[in-house]
Amino acid sequence: MGALHEGHLELVRRARERCAAVVASIFVNPLQFAPSEDLATYPRDLQHDREKLAAAGIDALFEPDVPAMYPANFSTFVAVEPLEELFEGARRPGHFRGVSTVIAKLLNIVRPDVLFLGQKDAQQAVLLHKMIADLDFSVEVEVVATVREPDGLAMSSRNRYLDATRRVEAATLYQALCTTLRAFEGGARKADALEAGIAALSSRAHLDYLEVVDAATFEPIEELRPPAFIIGAARFGTTRLIDNLWVPK
Amino acid sequence: MGALHEGHLELVRRARERCAAVVASIFVNPLQFAPSEDLATYPRDLQHDREKLAAAGIDALFEPDVPAMYPANFSTFVAVEPLEELFEGARRPGHFRGVSTVIAKLLNIVRPDVLFLGQKDAQQAVLLHKMIADLDFSVEVEVVATVREPDGLAMSSRNRYLDATRRVEAATLYQALCTTLRAFEGGARKADALEAGIAALSSRAHLDYLEVVDAATFEPIEELRPPAFIIGAARFGTTRLIDNLWVPK
Repeated sequence: MGALHEGHLELVRRARERCAAVVASIFVNPLQFAPSEDLATYPRDLQHDREKLAAAGIDALFEPDVPAMYPANFSTFVAVEPLEELFEGARRPGHFRGVSTVIAKLLNIVRPDVLFLGQKDAQQAVLLHKMIADLDFSVEVEVVATVREPDGLAMSSRNRYLDATRRVEAATLYQALCTTLRAFEGGARKADALEAGIAALSSRAHLDYLEVVDAATFEPIEELRPPAFIIGAARFGTTRLIDNLWVPK
Repeated sequence: MGALHEGHLELVRRARERCAAVVASIFVNPLQFAPSEDLATYPRDLQHDREKLAAAGIDALFEPDVPAMYPANFSTFVAVEPLEELFEGARRPGHFRGVSTVIAKLLNIVRPDVLFLGQKDAQQAVLLHKMIADLDFSVEVEVVATVREPDGLAMSSRNRYLDATRRVEAATLYQALCTTLRAFEGGARKADALEAGIAALSSRAHLDYLEVVDAATFEPIEELRPPAFIIGAARFGTTRLIDNLWVPK
């Protein structure tokens, strides 16, 4: 999607370690924006993106325009049910249908052996894993750990929307996740663990959700039964951010 | 789908002419049967199917069972809108979603260079062509002309359901299509051409539809503007049959 940060470049570095050739794509995919969302203003910085990718050492860059990907009569969609309706899917109508459809196209165009995805978008990674398994795409998925700022804030293209005050507050989303995890590890029950997490969030944040979900289905679970994710979404001013912690078995 | 007839074997012969290796699949795909349909009683004749394919000269046969194709938690579907809702799609809820989903899987499993489809299922062929273009599958589609009995009845696995009387009546579906085409060619307007076609159909048949559709969109058109299909569906007793004529440019 462009507007590259260290999280994206970490995917490239990991791909270079594993693979003989690395292909990146930059495509701000209109299909994954809900009508009310920030498609027109989504950060675009193509010249810097190209330089960053060149420096990170890719072998090819796929940079299609919208009519090349979606001709006027485009009308085929990939749906991963019921995952696409949960959490981010419930808040962003059509978002995951747009993600799964564009990734199906990119997989068919590039035919990679390995697809590198960031753990930051955990629901996306789980959903694409499911699509790949269900539709028998011949590609391995490697999920790469979230890259964070020194105060814990997960790298995101939308972080640049935050002013200085919001930027400080935004780090409390990660703190809320960590506090929730520590509470679970200390023996707290779910309601208490989530309450502790919410208390760690800036009082000026607008919490959307804080949940514990099964790692395969992304359905909420009543205990922290690994493998699982602790997931959170909150608004800081007008900027909505998501984050998660992976709790392995 | 098995229950192979000359129409299927013609696909194999055509593939042998063009390709270095030919792969066939036999899989009665539960996903493309509507709840009310004949999944349980759909004709299965695996031993004869294998012998016919061996005689026609395939290189590999893919014969998965249902749990291999659809594990218990399978939940990803490919939808080709609005094509999947027209004609056969309107009569058979979920049918085309089942077709496009299983073909996406088969394309990913087999990775063929060319996919051979029968023109008998014209809407299916058009829909799969659209799916392949929209999702960028790297496969060419070749549509092979319908193989017919001497009286014109299109080969179909469901023809075996017809008793002797129905079998004779069933040939009038093809006659209805041919009569419609001749009427158009004679300068008739659409309403008159369709009326002539309907008159050629056995009075004991239950007509479902007789239409003229655009070859790319399968939307009804008001004049015979090639490339187009003249399509028909009718019930003969309890057996529902479809057929079509391709009208090239």
